[in-house]
Amino acid sequence: MAGNTFGTAFRVTTWGESHGTAVGATIDGCPPGLKITTQELQKEMDRRRPGTGGAASPRNEPDKVEILSGIYNDTSTGTPITLIIHNKDAHSKSYDHLAQIFRPGHGDITYLKKYGIRDHRGGGRASARETAARVAAGAVAKLVLAQKAINICAYTIELGGIKAGERDLTEITNNRLFCPDSQAAARMEERIAEVKKENDTLGGIVEIRAQGVPVGLGEPVFDKLDGELARAMMSIGAVKGVEIGSGFAAAAMTGSQNNDPLTPDGFKSNNAGGILAGISSGVDIVVRVAVKPIPSIAQEQDTVDLDNKPIKIKIGGRHDISAIPRIIPVCEAMMALTLTDHLLRQRAIAG
Amino acid sequence: MAGNTFGTAFRVTTWGESHGTAVGATIDGCPPGLKITTQELQKEMDRRRPGTGGAASPRNEPDKVEILSGIYNDTSTGTPITLIIHNKDAHSKSYDHLAQIFRPGHGDITYLKKYGIRDHRGGGRASARETAARVAAGAVAKLVLAQKAINICAYTIELGGIKAGERDLTEITNNRLFCPDSQAAARMEERIAEVKKENDTLGGIVEIRAQGVPVGLGEPVFDKLDGELARAMMSIGAVKGVEIGSGFAAAAMTGSQNNDPLTPDGFKSNNAGGILAGISSGVDIVVRVAVKPIPSIAQEQDTVDLDNKPIKIKIGGRHDISAIPRIIPVCEAMMALTLTDHLLRQRAIAG
Amino acid sequence: MAGNTFGTAFRVTTWGESHGTAVGATIDGCPPGLKITTQELQKEMDRRRPGTGGAASPRNEPDKVEILSGIYNDTSTGTPITLIIHNKDAHSKSYDHLAQIFRPGHGDITYLKKYGIRDHRGGGRASARETAARVAAGAVAKLVLAQKAINICAYTIELGGIKAGERDLTEITNNRLFCPDSQAAARMEERIAEVKKENDTLGGIVEIRAQGVPVGLGEPVFDKLDGELARAMMSIGAVKGVEIGSGFAAAAMTGSQNNDPLTPDGFKSNNAGGILAGISSGVDIVVRVAVKPIPSIAQEQDTVDLDNKPIKIKIGGRHDISAIPRIIPVCEAMMALTLTDHLLRQRAIAG
Amino acid sequence: MAGNTFGTAFRVTTWGESHGTAVGATIDGCPPGLKITTQELQKEMDRRRPGTGGAASPRNEPDKVEILSGIYNDTSTGTPITLIIHNKDAHSKSYDHLAQIFRPGHGDITYLKKYGIRDHRGGGRASARETAARVAAGAVAKLVLAQKAINICAYTIELGGIKAGERDLTEITNNRLFCPDSQAAARMEERIAEVKKENDTLGGIVEIRAQGVPVGLGEPVFDKLDGELARAMMSIGAVKGVEIGSGFAAAAMTGSQNNDPLTPDGFKSNNAGGILAGISSGVDIVVRVAVKPIPSIAQEQDTVDLDNKPIKIKIGGRHDISAIPRIIPVCEAMMALTLTDHLLRQRAIAG
Repeated sequence: MAGNTFGTAFRVTTWGESHGTAVGATIDGCPPGLKITTQELQKEMDRRRPGTGGAASPRNEPDKVEILSGIYNDTSTGTPITLIIHNKDAHSKSYDHLAQIFRPGHGDITYLKKYGIRDHRGGGRASARETAARVAAGAVAKLVLAQKAINICAYTIELGGIKAGERDLTEITNNRLFCPDSQAAARMEERIAEVKKENDTLGGIVEIRAQGVPVGLGEPVFDKLDGELARAMMSIGAVKGVEIGSGFAAAAMTGSQNNDPLTPDGFKSNNAGGILAGISSGVDIVVRVAVKPIPSIAQEQDTVDLDNKPIKIKIGGRHDISAIPRIIPVCEAMMALTLTDHLLRQRAIAG
Repeated sequence: MAGNTFGTAFRVTTWGESHGTAVGATIDGCPPGLKITTQELQKEMDRRRPGTGGAASPRNEPDKVEILSGIYNDTSTGTPITLIIHNKDAHSKSYDHLAQIFRPGHGDITYLKKYGIRDHRGGGRASARETAARVAAGAVAKLVLAQKAINICAYTIELGGIKAGERDLTEITNNRLFCPDSQAAARMEERIAEVKKENDTLGGIVEIRAQGVPVGLGEPVFDKLDGELARAMMSIGAVKGVEIGSGFAAAAMTGSQNNDPLTPDGFKSNNAGGILAGISSGVDIVVRVAVKPIPSIAQEQDTVDLDNKPIKIKIGGRHDISAIPRIIPVCEAMMALTLTDHLLRQRAIAG
Repeated sequence: MAGNTFGTAFRVTTWGESHGTAVGATIDGCPPGLKITTQELQKEMDRRRPGTGGAASPRNEPDKVEILSGIYNDTSTGTPITLIIHNKDAHSKSYDHLAQIFRPGHGDITYLKKYGIRDHRGGGRASARETAARVAAGAVAKLVLAQKAINICAYTIELGGIKAGERDLTEITNNRLFCPDSQAAARMEERIAEVKKENDTLGGIVEIRAQGVPVGLGEPVFDKLDGELARAMMSIGAVKGVEIGSGFAAAAMTGSQNNDPLTPDGFKSNNAGGILAGISSGVDIVVRVAVKPIPSIAQEQDTVDLDNKPIKIKIGGRHDISAIPRIIPVCEAMMALTLTDHLLRQRAIAG
Repeated sequence: MAGNTFGTAFRVTTWGESHGTAVGATIDGCPPGLKITTQELQKEMDRRRPGTGGAASPRNEPDKVEILSGIYNDTSTGTPITLIIHNKDAHSKSYDHLAQIFRPGHGDITYLKKYGIRDHRGGGRASARETAARVAAGAVAKLVLAQKAINICAYTIELGGIKAGERDLTEITNNRLFCPDSQAAARMEERIAEVKKENDTLGGIVEIRAQGVPVGLGEPVFDKLDGELARAMMSIGAVKGVEIGSGFAAAAMTGSQNNDPLTPDGFKSNNAGGILAGISSGVDIVVRVAVKPIPSIAQEQDTVDLDNKPIKIKIGGRHDISAIPRIIPVCEAMMALTLTDHLLRQRAIAG
């Protein structure tokens, strides 16, 4: 049983390969009567596009999203919305030599062993290009959330070992790395430049915050909101860890430190990250994800070929130094898809 | 839409409240022909029982599991298996004074606001008692996995800030905390005793390891194995963070450090934690979870009552100092349920 | 992937075998705040009980339903509701000689070939006894529907080839066969007596009607309300045909005959059976099902044993002459489960 | 919660409106390694195209199917397959006067009341055009089934009240109506011509037969194969009734007449229609569906407008006289999708 659908009430299925005709998303369950234009969706797409800066790949995709169904007179009708993003700038030839080799840190070997066949061009379905479809669908979800004044933003709090000190969210749009500490951002850029010379890559940590989420979202016991968010984030290729609120730090805290006391004005602290017993508590939802360094490096690495013979590999091509910042809108999209789904699910319960 | 079912091909629905008649699990999709006895299931149940040691609650439940359906002549028939564990030692009266108050760190407030009603007795459905049903279902899953020589074990690597140094898995059964470093375990016990005197509680970190998992489990892109495991673990009440392989440490590594080179004898390292692009790679799957300190503390805390009036609360009752070690078999159960589900899902694909 | 769950938002999983410990149902997604008592549920159970009349089996089950979870102070809490009906009067011994033989018209052979094992006692899971759990869950669904003034009733319009002429619904409770034409009911009883002497059995047709259903239920294109009802009804063992509104008669009509003209006062006719394009139209939903004669007959029949050797079989035991009238509350339950599910699903859409 | 997805292991989501950009289908769960070409899929599409004969609409769509994803080197890779059929010959203008009126027998009124908005052009999503996507997806399913030597064919056994006498399946391709009795087909054509002059339309009955289905498909108790087929067929807009095997005729039979005795050579008869207790028995699966007359008639009819004012309507445009024969490949597609889904589901169970 395949797993290309996300969500229960607001269901998104993504499809398409990195070097195929197109990638796309089909949304089933979008509420009718929602104002949706390609212009609005395109804004989100543009945030995810490869830039020309140090960390970004020079692959130049316009990433133009088109609406194929479900919207009439710029308004959702309640029928499935299909969004398509054509692939334009795919250089499949540059992947030909990789058809016989497994790239370390990539899914080449697991895809082949799972399916007995793989579309090796550009990583096929395992490529980060698939996330373009998520961002498109997430843009629709954000419109649903906006109606309820729910807002999502993601930002870089660590990159290449450099941590953001300040958490000034107004600072995020002032630097290319979506970092709430512009001074740290500058040091991160230096680190990127450094590592680029070494033909290496970097990881980091992204924090995703949702504001305005009403109390009551999340379905105990297995579809707890934190569990759903953990899956959502971990379904992004580069993510290797997820934590909510105080997260791993909670492991070293005592109950009296970690509990969030209640007052008539609300919670005194937010170690819970906005989720109690799997249900949103009405305060900010705070999630952090660990982003691994991009595995495509231009250094020589040991690997094997299809016959399990040892071989050296050095990956050229057009690759980013870090999944950050391009992963930022993807993280936001996954948060938006999760919250929208649970918003609709809660309606079924509360009437 | 409620969320009390876990899995797609091997589906487990748990039901029951802490102080109701019983808790139970219904499994739909268990392969027929599997040898299952209550004795076998009871072994797992007994591992989760409250002990008499320092960290454990004195609530004394025999936790006797009974089979209501789906098994004939000690063999699964392919029909739904319902397991029931009756509640015997529930002291609901001791919760009466809590009906009007929200306990900090608990789901009291979110349950009430979500549903408009709550069964406050013993935490109702949000109680850790619900996990008894998971352990019972997980015991069945373990029998499915055993047929494929897949083995799961979980162990404590940090408690109250004290870290296990050694990782000697043979050591796990030699101490009550399932710690692979018995010396660290002794220090953890001291820390427990200390904190108990302070009427406080502790968190920690548990590592869960699956050995013998074949390559090919996990369904990209949204049902990646790591995403599914993240949800599985985060659906346990006390868990606030999940990481796979190098996890959060990967954020500070470079690609050349984090990639696992391939050799004809297999991977040189396992930073990926046994999962590449969401698909198991054939080596050990390694997951770590952050366990928060138990929120029920005997210290005085600020909270509010149903009328949002401020009130002081001090929680007595029979409570553990740490969710560890009782969470250990629960983590194993969730790993077992996830892997069994994906084992069956892969059959549908591979034929 | 097993299939013991019905519904999406109001999900019911039934479990249990005819001669096992119990049969039961677990409901996930019941709205919180609903008044539910065992007394109320028991009323529905009692309608399904084997009577002592000509058509009914003498197996004497009290069919006492118990609530195991999800209800606190006679009120649903939003958590899973598990209902259990213990098996008391199972005479498994009388089935011993059937362990090696496939009964014609039964699932003995298909169950064994599908699963490689079967619980032959009383037909195991394929027994009509499983429908006791459906009736219990359906009783909960009826309480949800009652809040919206939706009412369901089923009645016999044909039995043993004898058709009801009148359709006086007030007449239904005046005869044991739930027939809206008491004179026809008397002739049906004669036919039953006749066929009983011949050691044979009878089929018939049941009509199920839902009144007060609001416009807008049903999810095009695959989860159309008529499609969902068709599946619901055909999932009852004895049902071999389903039709909506004019049904099979529509095949011989012209468009001008079959269309239901619209007037300011509503539809002039109801050939559509209350469903247009898969969505309820606000008038009565009318479904008819073809019920096959019970396959357990006391006449000698040809069959084979486990070794595919020919053998004669004559089925004694305690069997009904017709699935009617006991199937009546089962049909109502399936209608109730379907409508409740779509009522909740529509909430998620309409907000 | 929307309902545009069919299937569990072989999942098909259709999307698109009659007069939008395109209609399409996304298949998730197609086994990898399957040979698939557009040429092969196009063959099925061509069978559904509007002809130029008496019963068919003159709308001239080339119905050219394109593959957007999931297939590499003419081989399925296990990733989602998206198929698209662009709309070319949509005359939306001819529907402008219908924006304010509800056509009798159509979903205009229910769509509007459900969603609060509707795309009235060509019936939007409720149009039979949506079935083009089903046929495309069904063509893929047929390729999966062909590997197991499972074959599906549908044919007309009644049209406009005229019944096929013979059931010579070799005759089906010899007449435009896919009728196994060519003499009856000729009389059906006469009836079509007659009714066309009267500006009226016709219904009929289609039988769908699957040959070569292995024993063991279907998931009791709710996902019985007959229940799933009933839903599949009833999800086709024009279908108002479904029966399996002896179907409604069984209602008037006795058990001794309806039971299919077993012999060492198999079943003596097939009143069960190839399904026992919801599981395929290894003989032909036989389903019949009642097709209602097309509601778009050129006669004057009573209806109301958006303000519930009475109005007369006469529907011009390009409409068929009967959904037969164009519904034939759609019925086959739904049978193919259902069987493929259960073929894969059974793999998960049987290993």
